[in-house]
Amino acid sequence: MAIPFKTIALIGKHKNPDITTPLLSLAQFLSERDLNVVLDVLTAAHIEDLAYPALTLEQIGKQADLAVVIGGDGTMLNIARALVSYNVPLIGVNQGRLGFLTDLTVETMYDTLAMMLEGQYVVENRTLLATEVMRNEECVYKELAFNDVVLHRGVSSGMIEFEVRINDEYVYSLRSDGLIVASPTGSTAYALSAGGPILHPGLDLMALVPVCPHTLSNRPIVVGADAVVDIKVHYTTETKIYADSHSWFDLGEHDRVVVRRYPETVRLMHSIHYSHYRMLREKLGWSGILQKNGG
Amino acid sequence: MAIPFKTIALIGKHKNPDITTPLLSLAQFLSERDLNVVLDVLTAAHIEDLAYPALTLEQIGKQADLAVVIGGDGTMLNIARALVSYNVPLIGVNQGRLGFLTDLTVETMYDTLAMMLEGQYVVENRTLLATEVMRNEECVYKELAFNDVVLHRGVSSGMIEFEVRINDEYVYSLRSDGLIVASPTGSTAYALSAGGPILHPGLDLMALVPVCPHTLSNRPIVVGADAVVDIKVHYTTETKIYADSHSWFDLGEHDRVVVRRYPETVRLMHSIHYSHYRMLREKLGWSGILQKNGG
Amino acid sequence: MAIPFKTIALIGKHKNPDITTPLLSLAQFLSERDLNVVLDVLTAAHIEDLAYPALTLEQIGKQADLAVVIGGDGTMLNIARALVSYNVPLIGVNQGRLGFLTDLTVETMYDTLAMMLEGQYVVENRTLLATEVMRNEECVYKELAFNDVVLHRGVSSGMIEFEVRINDEYVYSLRSDGLIVASPTGSTAYALSAGGPILHPGLDLMALVPVCPHTLSNRPIVVGADAVVDIKVHYTTETKIYADSHSWFDLGEHDRVVVRRYPETVRLMHSIHYSHYRMLREKLGWSGILQKNGG
Amino acid sequence: MAIPFKTIALIGKHKNPDITTPLLSLAQFLSERDLNVVLDVLTAAHIEDLAYPALTLEQIGKQADLAVVIGGDGTMLNIARALVSYNVPLIGVNQGRLGFLTDLTVETMYDTLAMMLEGQYVVENRTLLATEVMRNEECVYKELAFNDVVLHRGVSSGMIEFEVRINDEYVYSLRSDGLIVASPTGSTAYALSAGGPILHPGLDLMALVPVCPHTLSNRPIVVGADAVVDIKVHYTTETKIYADSHSWFDLGEHDRVVVRRYPETVRLMHSIHYSHYRMLREKLGWSGILQKNGG
Repeated sequence: MAIPFKTIALIGKHKNPDITTPLLSLAQFLSERDLNVVLDVLTAAHIEDLAYPALTLEQIGKQADLAVVIGGDGTMLNIARALVSYNVPLIGVNQGRLGFLTDLTVETMYDTLAMMLEGQYVVENRTLLATEVMRNEECVYKELAFNDVVLHRGVSSGMIEFEVRINDEYVYSLRSDGLIVASPTGSTAYALSAGGPILHPGLDLMALVPVCPHTLSNRPIVVGADAVVDIKVHYTTETKIYADSHSWFDLGEHDRVVVRRYPETVRLMHSIHYSHYRMLREKLGWSGILQKNGG
Repeated sequence: MAIPFKTIALIGKHKNPDITTPLLSLAQFLSERDLNVVLDVLTAAHIEDLAYPALTLEQIGKQADLAVVIGGDGTMLNIARALVSYNVPLIGVNQGRLGFLTDLTVETMYDTLAMMLEGQYVVENRTLLATEVMRNEECVYKELAFNDVVLHRGVSSGMIEFEVRINDEYVYSLRSDGLIVASPTGSTAYALSAGGPILHPGLDLMALVPVCPHTLSNRPIVVGADAVVDIKVHYTTETKIYADSHSWFDLGEHDRVVVRRYPETVRLMHSIHYSHYRMLREKLGWSGILQKNGG
Repeated sequence: MAIPFKTIALIGKHKNPDITTPLLSLAQFLSERDLNVVLDVLTAAHIEDLAYPALTLEQIGKQADLAVVIGGDGTMLNIARALVSYNVPLIGVNQGRLGFLTDLTVETMYDTLAMMLEGQYVVENRTLLATEVMRNEECVYKELAFNDVVLHRGVSSGMIEFEVRINDEYVYSLRSDGLIVASPTGSTAYALSAGGPILHPGLDLMALVPVCPHTLSNRPIVVGADAVVDIKVHYTTETKIYADSHSWFDLGEHDRVVVRRYPETVRLMHSIHYSHYRMLREKLGWSGILQKNGG
Repeated sequence: MAIPFKTIALIGKHKNPDITTPLLSLAQFLSERDLNVVLDVLTAAHIEDLAYPALTLEQIGKQADLAVVIGGDGTMLNIARALVSYNVPLIGVNQGRLGFLTDLTVETMYDTLAMMLEGQYVVENRTLLATEVMRNEECVYKELAFNDVVLHRGVSSGMIEFEVRINDEYVYSLRSDGLIVASPTGSTAYALSAGGPILHPGLDLMALVPVCPHTLSNRPIVVGADAVVDIKVHYTTETKIYADSHSWFDLGEHDRVVVRRYPETVRLMHSIHYSHYRMLREKLGWSGILQKNGG
């Protein structure tokens, strides 16, 4: 049942020398357990006298049985998109406070990894979104998003206007600052700030969350991940499309943005003591105990 | 593929004599097409010289191939709960404006039904919720809900306090006016007024929507319909549990409310021209066309 | 400029013996500074061998130059309403965590009071609401509210329906769980949970905040405190009116609820080091420092 | 009491030839009533053989007793800012649907203006905001805003981070898409889409409305118009400041945005039959009548 981990890749937040000490310490910890340790080549770039092989992400994807990502949620988003086709399970370690995707800390990672390597883990499959921009039936932009695909107005425009279709059925026309198509993973990121619901990460869903809609009755909609979301922008307003806020593209007037589930899922590995709801309570400041006194 | 409809039950909003004329007119329309028409016995009670058999809902469940419900969404909720075990598809006709569940009007029902009886229909399976109140390991209240199970403070109390667990995992403790556990069908009812998302009705989900939570960061959560939601009320505040606002029960201090998906689904029949999103646009006042002018 | 305080009343949360020790300790602290200390008679009831005069709230209103209230925000609401006509400034001490109205703690009250008694204080005038229920032109219920006047559905009803007029001008008809008319003080209480804005407490305003409105575009409205708000309940649904959740009344079908500013204001005394915004940050969990890492 | 109107300026939406016919028709209507009609010079630019003097806005400000603006709310915002120092009352006529600021229609303007010119009008004073960007104690940008001053992230940045002070008191640090400082007039524009309250337009207030705040408990705050709002942007994220979305400026790292009430007010003239709440009902789709049927 447990995956036999032999080769473990370590990937750190880029251009971040603070990561070197915990990363090398973790490498040693794993080597002492007779595991092959490899490092991401970009992470390795600013480490002198490296005792471990430095591999590209593609090589890691092919060779590693597990990848440990040290950084923040942003780093995890990038690595998850890059490795999704290789089916490598990912563990996230946060340098600072816990993240939504990086649920180990540098302090506790040794004990937790030791347990996980003995089989005390669960693997979670997370939905990834694929987006394309179609212009005159040709694809002019193509990107993956783990959190969300975001349509947003540019700097010089007021609200943007667009039409949404789901599986070729007309849904609505909207004027707003933008529209977020979020995966369950992304439901606790930007979409939450825009008023969207929290989707359990194990569900295969998408949420369509308008950003500051002109029509006040327009509300977030949750659809199945088999839905194909098609967004057509109206008028010549400056409109951008973002994938996970790491890449953006300028939309032209009759461009269509198409968002659908990516066929492969991201595989996140957690300790068996991981609790999604505890993480929500901590990150969102929900009190875990009832207070006797009122408002 | 098409269901061969032979016996069709007509069920009207109770204690509502206005329904008699369209109901008898519809009965005649169906009889003329060589269909057996039967009437709900309570609906039939205030019709004189009735030419059709009057059956109980149980008899309708066993004998009818299809039930047409004339009334509002409230009537449809009642009939759907009552007939769910019999697997009879339901068609809703609204006397007034269209409802979320009653998508035919008295004016257009003849044409639409004629089409549907020729096979131009789709059947939608809708999730139903089952709730139980457990007191010292005994069930003291048991009810079905099509829209929602609602925990709400009573008249003499301020906010109520309770703990939520999902599949035995602790989720949060909350002080609020209440908590709504909504089916996708109920996501456009009370839960929407409380800030919940719109769930596509074909999905097998539940939304947990807090009503006026004291903790402002507490937000609606969407979970799979295989989740068992367990709510434990704290302190001796007056708390009620409602199922579809048709039935309510007084909770005691250590009572637990358990909500889970009912094993059977409600089967709604729509014309093939029915559009869920058009209904949302109409009911929620979303403009279907873009307006050129701002502000 | 500074008020010469001679007689100081101490008022504790009723039926709360925990209050006795800090209260007597505070009484001694004040006596040693040559101030006359008097106690609220109900607070004094469970203290043996009391060395200070026990006065009714009416006597306190007439004789005291200052009242120190030890308890929670709920106690402060009660005392503020009771003493409003006597113009006595109030200081709130919270036994536990800081409250919105009780901004001293038992631990720090000695130092802070010492400073305040030397003139280092500010006095804030807070708007109070007066409500009346009119039935056939007769007043059948009359109450003061420091936080809010709340119209709310009863247990057996679904949404309630009512019409709102402001200064005899028709505003809207609404179906909802209820309507909150909040003072600036009450804007951080129930109204905030229902989606209302935070009104600076020094402003002379009222906020009308619907509770779970059926019409999604219905939003909180802020009007001047010179507005007379007139609410007429429709249909025979069970509807209650609450004043500060300490008193409630059953509305009949054609009753009108009239809410207006009370001519007198509550006078809250704060240390000159008190900061309204710091209190908001602490109570609402707004982080006071920027975090470098994202979502 | 009534202002004796002698010279009336007509101002149309620029570059909009559709306006010519109603505008000339209105000019003739007013001339026949022995009033001096003057036209805005830009409006006049595309009218041939003009029979009326064409004046700059500055000349209109000095000479006209009243200005009638034909266009949409956007045109009214522009003219209101331009004429605010001259104290000329403004009447707004909308070509299409009613606007929040343009409450006459082309069809009804003759009758309504005839009434108003006979004294059946009310004048409303509306708060205007002045904003300055301070860089090393020097003002590098200065603008008026009738609706709102908006701080917003640029295209290449994620959330922006900034600190807010009011009257030199620290309020909060926030990560968000932006912050809206809205006048009561602007409370029904962008601020409403971002979750802000509706402020009665006659009040002298500002609302601070965060746009998609990272901290979910951060809520709109209403302060008096005597407040000086000071916003300091952190980190080197691309941040823009907008005034009424007609003008924008790029903020540098230590820039401070200062927003305060402008000393002069905009004077809007309405017919005595104008109702602010009716306009809200119409624009926001609030039903004016109660519906008998539920959900």
